[in-house]
Amino acid sequence: MGIQDFITSNNLRLDQQLKFTVEIDKMTGVLRHTLLVDGSRRENDAEHSWHIAVMTLLFKEYCIAPVDIERAAKMCLVHDLIEVYAGDTFAYDPVGNKDKEEREAAAADKLFAKLPSEQGEELRALWVEFDAMQTNDAKYAACMDRLQPFLHNTLTQGHTWVESGTCRANVEKRMAIVGEFMPEVYKWVETNIDHAVEIGWLKE
Amino acid sequence: MGIQDFITSNNLRLDQQLKFTVEIDKMTGVLRHTLLVDGSRRENDAEHSWHIAVMTLLFKEYCIAPVDIERAAKMCLVHDLIEVYAGDTFAYDPVGNKDKEEREAAAADKLFAKLPSEQGEELRALWVEFDAMQTNDAKYAACMDRLQPFLHNTLTQGHTWVESGTCRANVEKRMAIVGEFMPEVYKWVETNIDHAVEIGWLKE
Repeated sequence: MGIQDFITSNNLRLDQQLKFTVEIDKMTGVLRHTLLVDGSRRENDAEHSWHIAVMTLLFKEYCIAPVDIERAAKMCLVHDLIEVYAGDTFAYDPVGNKDKEEREAAAADKLFAKLPSEQGEELRALWVEFDAMQTNDAKYAACMDRLQPFLHNTLTQGHTWVESGTCRANVEKRMAIVGEFMPEVYKWVETNIDHAVEIGWLKE
Repeated sequence: MGIQDFITSNNLRLDQQLKFTVEIDKMTGVLRHTLLVDGSRRENDAEHSWHIAVMTLLFKEYCIAPVDIERAAKMCLVHDLIEVYAGDTFAYDPVGNKDKEEREAAAADKLFAKLPSEQGEELRALWVEFDAMQTNDAKYAACMDRLQPFLHNTLTQGHTWVESGTCRANVEKRMAIVGEFMPEVYKWVETNIDHAVEIGWLKE
């Protein structure tokens, strides 16, 4: 089963687009450390990307600057695509994060080259903008990308915090963009960090 | 584990939005009949919704009328949310499709009421527009919703066609919106239907 059974459309662009669609189905096999809310298993990149894209439709009102929901949603949809080749780099893994940039750039070269060039460039630009976290849309998308696993952690006994043995300062650093861009939401984040430290899910 | 561990933000709107985010994580447990491309397991609603939302970024050029990619993507993100309560209704199941409308309306009432009212109404309106398939954006989103499982079927030995014992006419009916709205893509669909009939995955 798989791409070897693909029947050509005799239209090179369409074939590229369909095959790219097939390739990114591998996102369903890229496991994150975060658990689903019910704790039953680890979530995958496809599920995570969907979840945070929906979240962009809900939380705009807390941003301190204007954002374009639709652009932020698009960034959320594509922000992890390169993990099809680069794998997921756990937020609290200092070793994996050392060569993250290099690995991901190589993965992007490989992945986006599969599309008609202007489409590959468009998707790559969205990913680069997301990662740079400089524009308001990217900041909003990044907030959703931080808030979703944070929310899951609060409901799964601090799963990835406990697993990694991380501490308050690391989580605060990870969540800083929410503090900067969505201060009202960050109050809730802070309350949960305090609780996590208190209950022993997070080191002080 | 789960929502019982949720700590209030003391902001009713924010609590509603965060709890809704938690609730829709159940999409990861709503299994579709379609297999992942690698045939390893059935895909779930979260994965499917993400996949077709990304596809809206790629296939616009084949539409016979102007479409707003971002609106179509939003529809794709939310088009199956009500299945958290209504479950997935298999496209080729005549019995399940009989009371589908009623079950889904009740599910929508329950689900969207969890959000601040104007947000619930906005998401519900996107779902209703998608389902009615009358606007160009909804037609485009519906095409992606049909094309993705079709593509998966062609790469997994006609899995859901074989499983349901369905026939060419039923698949052609299901794919008719692609024929109407994306005729260039439908040529490829037709080639694959012919092949599926020939190889015995689909009854004539």
